[in-house]
Amino acid sequence: MTDRYAEHRTLARALGVDAVALVPGPNFTRLFNASFGSHERPMLVLIPIEGPPAALVPNLELLSFSQLEFEGEVFDWRDQTGYDAAFAALAAHMPLRSVAVEGQVMRVFVHHALANAYRGLRVMDGETAISGLRLCKTDAELAALSGAIAASEAALADTLAQVRVGMTETAIEALLVQALFAQGAQSLAFGPIVAAGGNAAMPHAHARADYGVKPGDALLLDFGARKDGFCADITRTVFVGHADDASAEIYDAVLRANLAGFAATRPGATAHDVDDAATSVLEATEHAIYIRTKTGHGLGRDVHEAPYIMRGNHQALTPGMVFTIEPGLYLPGRIGVRIEDDVVVTQAGARSLTSFPKTLTLVGA
Amino acid sequence: MTDRYAEHRTLARALGVDAVALVPGPNFTRLFNASFGSHERPMLVLIPIEGPPAALVPNLELLSFSQLEFEGEVFDWRDQTGYDAAFAALAAHMPLRSVAVEGQVMRVFVHHALANAYRGLRVMDGETAISGLRLCKTDAELAALSGAIAASEAALADTLAQVRVGMTETAIEALLVQALFAQGAQSLAFGPIVAAGGNAAMPHAHARADYGVKPGDALLLDFGARKDGFCADITRTVFVGHADDASAEIYDAVLRANLAGFAATRPGATAHDVDDAATSVLEATEHAIYIRTKTGHGLGRDVHEAPYIMRGNHQALTPGMVFTIEPGLYLPGRIGVRIEDDVVVTQAGARSLTSFPKTLTLVGA
Repeated sequence: MTDRYAEHRTLARALGVDAVALVPGPNFTRLFNASFGSHERPMLVLIPIEGPPAALVPNLELLSFSQLEFEGEVFDWRDQTGYDAAFAALAAHMPLRSVAVEGQVMRVFVHHALANAYRGLRVMDGETAISGLRLCKTDAELAALSGAIAASEAALADTLAQVRVGMTETAIEALLVQALFAQGAQSLAFGPIVAAGGNAAMPHAHARADYGVKPGDALLLDFGARKDGFCADITRTVFVGHADDASAEIYDAVLRANLAGFAATRPGATAHDVDDAATSVLEATEHAIYIRTKTGHGLGRDVHEAPYIMRGNHQALTPGMVFTIEPGLYLPGRIGVRIEDDVVVTQAGARSLTSFPKTLTLVGA
Repeated sequence: MTDRYAEHRTLARALGVDAVALVPGPNFTRLFNASFGSHERPMLVLIPIEGPPAALVPNLELLSFSQLEFEGEVFDWRDQTGYDAAFAALAAHMPLRSVAVEGQVMRVFVHHALANAYRGLRVMDGETAISGLRLCKTDAELAALSGAIAASEAALADTLAQVRVGMTETAIEALLVQALFAQGAQSLAFGPIVAAGGNAAMPHAHARADYGVKPGDALLLDFGARKDGFCADITRTVFVGHADDASAEIYDAVLRANLAGFAATRPGATAHDVDDAATSVLEATEHAIYIRTKTGHGLGRDVHEAPYIMRGNHQALTPGMVFTIEPGLYLPGRIGVRIEDDVVVTQAGARSLTSFPKTLTLVGA
């Protein structure tokens, strides 16, 4: 029987720690094919270099946890009595001097509980290495991701067909969200961004209930379905009624940057190269000072994961890596344009998982 | 001009630390009336006992952040260069020996960056005290919460009217989610739980795509809209077609526990008292071993917050506190019943913010 913890044990050895700790989140779900919320309740699995793992589980999750066919000891705890005793029992059962944790997932109260139970424990942020196990997607994972993207693109088409002049950003967002679920989303990959005019100049804008879209506005929609555990992340920027020449020129620059990023994507190129290709296009325009973000980020079970597509990240691209290419220009008070695709690195180069048209599109006519 | 940080400064003094650190989340949003995602990007505000605050902000959020009218220095950083230099500049600007953080919100990578920039920094988990500032809701906050609840209850009515024998749990969940957004939800307070038959025996069950509801099934729906920053959290358990005597008896016990919890809710009573009142009803039945959860949790900007309604928590209830009362019985493989209301403590006693009927209800007929 294969050891389902083999890659985690290898990783712990490579990091020079006694164990890897996983808390509920994307790495946990990939390993056990099950997801758990956590809120105020700590839950974790410890995978040592050798021997069976061990887990700390809230009592009310025991029945769900039993479906994982977990091989090790389980220390459960109840809300009424708290979790200190369970952590102490775990520490007595599995002595450790060092552990690698998921720094972007584990919260400080779990870190404190671990450090309290394991006196002198060295806690290393192993986020990059642990989540690195998810870098290259399998065919099954790519199929799930494509399903999330297909639902998202269908929802976008449904939504854009309904946009009219005067409709508020929040009303358009509500249409988009309902369309996502109607098209098969199981949840939202993240809270959508629907922003027009000057509001779209904030890369993470919030929709306004008091602003109706006006003729000539650029309308930015950044959103994605989560389906079968995978996240889509797509941005399209369309124009309401018409686009003036200045806006069309900005749109064209962003589109050229998007295409340049895709053209630079292939095995052996680096994350730096892709950002550099896309960003250089924007830098060559008069709007260079309105670049505010890196070109993209990895995408999979988490909506932001490695590889981060930015200059200075000399990580080589390998087949199976999936990331966004989402250059943008953000002119305060005026306009925000972003065009975002989800792409996978292939043996031959790259393939875009998104296929929604990117030619300048007018809506609400 | 009033100091909007007065309560945080008082709290830092009381905790014996030099400052309070806030990261994006419910406390941050309450203070600044603005929300930020964070993903892989650290962002935090430091509020010292005296003098102006300081902030560390991702460059791409600067424009959004500028709307907060923040009074202190802002240290920004870009993806391409990383955040170490910004943390170092922050530490040079505002020397600290100790800080209270939100242990259930701050993640380990931010904790590590802080500890790295501030050598020897004592990091205290101030979650209880910091989030404690949100314990008692204002009238405006109660109005927002009531709006989220009204949307949720309307969506539940829409959904139950559409349930039919043979419909899968995931199909019912999709109807519920679409109804929530159609009724004005801005997002989901949490991923809904829609579970029938034995699946509902797991308190945090996931909907199944391959199980159609059968006559006689108990169907549990636990869900809530988020609207204007506040979260609803409601559970109703209905029966498909009919309920057999054993199921009706279990339902009746849970309903009596729910009512007993509400009856025990008043100023001066404790969280312990409410859990004890509800749980004692369940313990007096033959199903006592199928109690798996505490009676409830606080509710507001976060879907799980203080006060935690459980034995051993001798926190006194005061007017303005809002929490769930959600006793349940979970018989593995057979049935799960939970009935959850959202209640506010008033001067006179308590008021239920939820009003959806709790009499045994049949659907799908």
